[in-house]
Amino acid sequence: MRIDIITVLPELIEPFMRESILGRAQKKGLAEIHIHNLRDYTADKHRRVDDYPFGGQAGMLMQCQPIDACISALKAERDYDEIIFTAPDGERFTQSVANELSLKRNIIILCGHYKGIDYRIREHLITREISVGDYVLTGGELPAAIMADAIVRVLPGAIGDEQSALSDSFQDNLLEAPTYTRPAEYHPVGNPEETWTVPEILLSGHEAKIKEWEYEQALQRTKTLRPDLLD
Amino acid sequence: MRIDIITVLPELIEPFMRESILGRAQKKGLAEIHIHNLRDYTADKHRRVDDYPFGGQAGMLMQCQPIDACISALKAERDYDEIIFTAPDGERFTQSVANELSLKRNIIILCGHYKGIDYRIREHLITREISVGDYVLTGGELPAAIMADAIVRVLPGAIGDEQSALSDSFQDNLLEAPTYTRPAEYHPVGNPEETWTVPEILLSGHEAKIKEWEYEQALQRTKTLRPDLLD
Repeated sequence: MRIDIITVLPELIEPFMRESILGRAQKKGLAEIHIHNLRDYTADKHRRVDDYPFGGQAGMLMQCQPIDACISALKAERDYDEIIFTAPDGERFTQSVANELSLKRNIIILCGHYKGIDYRIREHLITREISVGDYVLTGGELPAAIMADAIVRVLPGAIGDEQSALSDSFQDNLLEAPTYTRPAEYHPVGNPEETWTVPEILLSGHEAKIKEWEYEQALQRTKTLRPDLLD
Repeated sequence: MRIDIITVLPELIEPFMRESILGRAQKKGLAEIHIHNLRDYTADKHRRVDDYPFGGQAGMLMQCQPIDACISALKAERDYDEIIFTAPDGERFTQSVANELSLKRNIIILCGHYKGIDYRIREHLITREISVGDYVLTGGELPAAIMADAIVRVLPGAIGDEQSALSDSFQDNLLEAPTYTRPAEYHPVGNPEETWTVPEILLSGHEAKIKEWEYEQALQRTKTLRPDLLD
């Protein structure tokens, strides 16, 4: 699949696209991610892309022209399944939205910045507004990187071990059971006489009993921490 | 305030800490953000910080030792109000959590990576587990950057115009009214005969009427898109 990200701060997200899962997925040919600097599309000779809002509120807004020019240039090259705007008041981004978007062929993610964008862009060009959570950020760059990571992560072959993605929290509406690694007995730096142990069942080698314990723990943690997931 | 971020991929988040709101807040002396490479704290000669989980699940887990060593070293220097772990099954990060954390003096954010961390760290060292949303990411680096951005953004003086943060979505449980900037009439690239206009009230200059319109729009959009915010 192909993801085009439009931003005024490409240098912020480029590291994410090169490294980690996104870098590896691109090397494997599973995904193509292109970052576009919105300033490359402005008709303003000072490369400005924002202006004061009508009505006198505080803050600056991203203007129609550069966004329209950038999206139009991309659409002239290929068809897009979705043109997404990262908006705090959009549809909630969840694992199932990530799974669904991972089946698309081409998507654009427009990162908001400053106080927001001219609403006409949202009315006329955006096909879907998505929020990663109920909090306000300086820009849509982090939300775009989050969406790209969650979407690309579930593409078949993106992570080494398919099992690892399938056993993630949320994929079966259960939180994960607690997990432990070596050493079985750990003595903390602050108090070396103390011993932090691992549940014995995990050291027992009884595969069936371990599975049962894990399921019980997952269910118990979900009931306690996130009962809403079981509704 | 001071935020210490512990990660296996410092190069991913360093750009965020230098630029944008986080960079400016540090230059103004409002916030100090320190990134720690977990590998600098491992006792392993190959600088490894992960190992296989007990019980035979897929994926690798971050081990107790380097995390314990790093957190202990930080705690020896100063007291911390919270030691936060970015976990998909943690408490939900919202604007009010961001506001609350912005009042703390020193916090640590530990970024999970690989398949997770040894649960003993969560039992013994972590004081708070926070999730930025119901989706699974490759690591906790993006969630840590999101938390830092949302927290630092509300520190007094962090953004140029205080009014701008106060009028954000969520600060008063209302979504924002639509906003528009120049030009008042825009002709889209794809169809120059078409005209995208701005609501007339915003061009009227009647300040009181504009405020009323904005409030009505905000209320209407909240009722339609996010009725839960009005409960």
